[in-house]
Amino acid sequence: MPIYKAPVEDVQFLLNDVFQIDRYDNLPGFSDASADVREAILGEAAKLSEEVLQPLNRVGDLEGCKRNADGSVTTPKGFKDAFRQVAEGGWLGLSMPTEYGGQGLPMTLSQSVTEFLSSANMAFSMYGGLTTGAIAALLVHGSAEQKSKYVPKMVAGEWTGTMNLTEPQCGTDLGLIRSKAVKQADGSYKISGTKIFISAGEHDLADNIIHLVLARIEGAPAGIKGISLFVAPKFLVSADGSLGARNGVTCGSIEHKMGIHGNSTCVMNYDGATGWLIGGENKGMQAMFVMMNEARLGVGVQGLAQSEVAYQNAAAYARDRLQGRALSGPQAPDKPADPIIVHPDVRRTLLTIRAFNEAARAMVVWTSLKSDVAHRSNDPTDREAADDHMGLLTPVLKGYLTETGFANAVQAQQMYGGHGYIAEQGMEQFVRDARIAMIYEGANGIQALDLVGRKLPRDGGRAVMAFFGEVGAFAKEHGGDEAMKPFVAPLSTALGHLQQATTWLMQNAMMKPDNAGAAATDYMHLFGLVTLGYMWAKMAKIAQDKIAGSGTTAYLSTKLVTGRFFMERVLPATSAHLARVQSGSATIMELAADAF
Amino acid sequence: MPIYKAPVEDVQFLLNDVFQIDRYDNLPGFSDASADVREAILGEAAKLSEEVLQPLNRVGDLEGCKRNADGSVTTPKGFKDAFRQVAEGGWLGLSMPTEYGGQGLPMTLSQSVTEFLSSANMAFSMYGGLTTGAIAALLVHGSAEQKSKYVPKMVAGEWTGTMNLTEPQCGTDLGLIRSKAVKQADGSYKISGTKIFISAGEHDLADNIIHLVLARIEGAPAGIKGISLFVAPKFLVSADGSLGARNGVTCGSIEHKMGIHGNSTCVMNYDGATGWLIGGENKGMQAMFVMMNEARLGVGVQGLAQSEVAYQNAAAYARDRLQGRALSGPQAPDKPADPIIVHPDVRRTLLTIRAFNEAARAMVVWTSLKSDVAHRSNDPTDREAADDHMGLLTPVLKGYLTETGFANAVQAQQMYGGHGYIAEQGMEQFVRDARIAMIYEGANGIQALDLVGRKLPRDGGRAVMAFFGEVGAFAKEHGGDEAMKPFVAPLSTALGHLQQATTWLMQNAMMKPDNAGAAATDYMHLFGLVTLGYMWAKMAKIAQDKIAGSGTTAYLSTKLVTGRFFMERVLPATSAHLARVQSGSATIMELAADAF
Repeated sequence: MPIYKAPVEDVQFLLNDVFQIDRYDNLPGFSDASADVREAILGEAAKLSEEVLQPLNRVGDLEGCKRNADGSVTTPKGFKDAFRQVAEGGWLGLSMPTEYGGQGLPMTLSQSVTEFLSSANMAFSMYGGLTTGAIAALLVHGSAEQKSKYVPKMVAGEWTGTMNLTEPQCGTDLGLIRSKAVKQADGSYKISGTKIFISAGEHDLADNIIHLVLARIEGAPAGIKGISLFVAPKFLVSADGSLGARNGVTCGSIEHKMGIHGNSTCVMNYDGATGWLIGGENKGMQAMFVMMNEARLGVGVQGLAQSEVAYQNAAAYARDRLQGRALSGPQAPDKPADPIIVHPDVRRTLLTIRAFNEAARAMVVWTSLKSDVAHRSNDPTDREAADDHMGLLTPVLKGYLTETGFANAVQAQQMYGGHGYIAEQGMEQFVRDARIAMIYEGANGIQALDLVGRKLPRDGGRAVMAFFGEVGAFAKEHGGDEAMKPFVAPLSTALGHLQQATTWLMQNAMMKPDNAGAAATDYMHLFGLVTLGYMWAKMAKIAQDKIAGSGTTAYLSTKLVTGRFFMERVLPATSAHLARVQSGSATIMELAADAF
Repeated sequence: MPIYKAPVEDVQFLLNDVFQIDRYDNLPGFSDASADVREAILGEAAKLSEEVLQPLNRVGDLEGCKRNADGSVTTPKGFKDAFRQVAEGGWLGLSMPTEYGGQGLPMTLSQSVTEFLSSANMAFSMYGGLTTGAIAALLVHGSAEQKSKYVPKMVAGEWTGTMNLTEPQCGTDLGLIRSKAVKQADGSYKISGTKIFISAGEHDLADNIIHLVLARIEGAPAGIKGISLFVAPKFLVSADGSLGARNGVTCGSIEHKMGIHGNSTCVMNYDGATGWLIGGENKGMQAMFVMMNEARLGVGVQGLAQSEVAYQNAAAYARDRLQGRALSGPQAPDKPADPIIVHPDVRRTLLTIRAFNEAARAMVVWTSLKSDVAHRSNDPTDREAADDHMGLLTPVLKGYLTETGFANAVQAQQMYGGHGYIAEQGMEQFVRDARIAMIYEGANGIQALDLVGRKLPRDGGRAVMAFFGEVGAFAKEHGGDEAMKPFVAPLSTALGHLQQATTWLMQNAMMKPDNAGAAATDYMHLFGLVTLGYMWAKMAKIAQDKIAGSGTTAYLSTKLVTGRFFMERVLPATSAHLARVQSGSATIMELAADAF
């Protein structure tokens, strides 16, 4: 039976010490999230995750979701009660506006809670995650009436939300959407079409499901410019908020998937379903992007979350499993064998995962903080800088964290030997669940392309220059500090590689976009490595300062060793990524399609 | 429905041109394997794999194996008939000695057939694979009576074989085995204990199952020196070869696994089962190593095989799937979108997999050829050199090919976007099936440790010096050839990294074995990369010579582009591995076990 303990201490180190979020008390909601409040909330979230959600993780995997003959869907045993606890605990509204019943607290805090929930039970946490994504889109693009009609109930967890984009012929390229919307005399639309891969599309956890759906209004322009966004609830909602007639949107089947069995991934059939336009006609993509940015951050967190829970189990197993003797001689001579954690290769594996987890968590907090600034600050300069950061780092966070998170789950499974391949141990579920995060909300190749093709050149490279400026300034400021050398020197080298890769792209990709495409994934990895390297350098500085100030602790000394491991063992990969970026696209584009 | 087409042309290029196996006509069996015979056999193996085995792959995954109330096991629908075809076709005996009913052909040929079978249906192919591994151990260590009693029926596929090593408390460390053997008056032994993870432990494909089992004779020394190997058939075999009483070895349950559902992975209960000693008392490990070396080569081939079939499907999908437009402008303006193979990142992914597959296949042929020389040559110098090669490259082949093969299956799945996560597409099965190859027959961390701890220092480094000598001589010979520069220059750099890493190990790991352990996995990857780089350089030279001689073909020109891709995009990873090796073990060993 897998274990899970929420990394509360690590989150507190990030919020309190590394990013010192108390400095942001002037932003709405931040002063309500004092250190005491944060500690209480994180403690409660940990309890919910460890005691309620984690025990349901394997149940969800084994039982999956069942579509009944009437089209209703039954979720795994225990999910309904657990979702009620999540809703009643106010967890969905943690950082939602108070005017819609939320608590208005910083996203910086709620993303940490999201990590705990996702580590404990990824499939379950998606019901809430999709709901908050749908709320975000409604808040930005919905009419006042739509907001007041749907958002409070969603914030309360009485209703949930979905995103309906994908169709069988249309995944990445939403311009290929065929679902049709026909305008009615009363201003509503009748929507028809088939959507696939709809997470939480139908279930028994809530009284109503608010579907956000992309469709094409009759006569709209072809392609991406003719897509509109609609809200189509499962049950129509009367003016007084009560539930009316069942709408013409139903679950046709549940997909058979590799993992996240506890989430009902549905084929949704729209058969003249009644929907209302969100935002303007043919402006669906803009509205959708709001939802997608939130969702991409959340998916990146899923990568971290599965890596974290897989690590915890692998570390516990490595301490317990007796097998063989240490290379340097028996460490537990009274036992039939030493625990496998004596072996350098086991430690190398565990530290590789741990060094990622802690820096990835820092990157999530850093980026969430920027999101809060972008949404809440009244200083336009701050908002712009924060928005630049979000735009630049969101694809990196989604792509790099999910890819590495999955690889880490695989390596954690490996620590179990043959037992890792056996379902009862739970390790293979982490691998199967983590796998989807590399795919949905824009497959990682698309994230990489978004990074090099859109985010990098935007505004003359303003965002990436700011990033280089910040990291470079840190390296300069602490370069002379002897204790920081093991961190600053490798970071500077890695930053140099990223800057060279960026220069190469500027010189070679403008005229020849294939060079950007060929470089994209390696550039994204390079960016991810440098970002995590910067996070480690920041954390090391703070840890050293704390130790100098009030003495060391087990937490702080472990932090410094883990950080040094990252610098010595993980960061050297930047040189290979640079070499690949600089190799260009000629060889890649040389073969005809049928030669593959 | 996944596709599969056996890479016959590629195997022929390797056998006929790159390794020119006709030069080995003086070895027993080689002259029977003329080019025509090889072509016929590969063609028939392709047909069997494509038409009989591949269609059963998903059936096997869906149905799995069922243990019935009486302890018997039912394999998936169609497996029994398919196994009969494999047996009657003589496929298990392809390279087995003619005196036991085999065809005595080179292992170099039969390993290629193994690849086809494993690509088509990995779970199915294991029934035969375990059988040939058990035959190998019997041939080397069995008595004349044991050989004549068991081997002919196994070669004919009437009976199958198993390897029974693992127990719940004992995986890597076989010294912890608890299964007991008690000597009987008639010279036989009564064996009792529980074995887990026993592939093909019980099934309905053959009349008898010949279990090879490790156990500890009463009074034997503790640890690895007290382990003996026994043969314990499911049904006792009378002197006339007829089947007698049911032996006391039964399937207690079938493991619930991540993949290879079509293979019955059993918990086997030995309850006073009758067995006979193979080799001497307490000499079980020596006998087992024979089986394991064969098996490790076979498992490495599984890594390649899953990578190959996953690639073929991903390439086909990328040619068909219409989504988005090329960065350089529409390529299929008459269609609603371009096929995704126009995208550099898709091509990069496909070429990464393909460049591995073709070089890994060359490495398998190369190593199999050395195995044939080691077993069949009557020149002791040749035998020794070939045995050195086998010893050195077997852990690299097992560890590097399975790890990269799995990663490739994951990347091939990625090409499908969300569809890759759906079971019906078959891509996620390749991932789940490929995953086990990193674990069984010695988890990859153990392979790495075997490489650096045993194989590298053995005989004063004779094997690795011979390897460096061969690769270095090739680079020197062709370094001045302009056309070969794109291959020789990167190969020389990579070889230099491997040599530096080797020197570092010699200087730092002798006195401090933790430095070897900390370096092991990176060293294994570095070795794998250099080996595949050398394979590419050899293949490129032959391809260039053939083009110069008789003009180019689509096959040869694609080969050269794929090879250049490997040199530009894959090989640069050697520098990061070298840096990690040289970072030593200090940081890794610093934390106390409970700090993890």
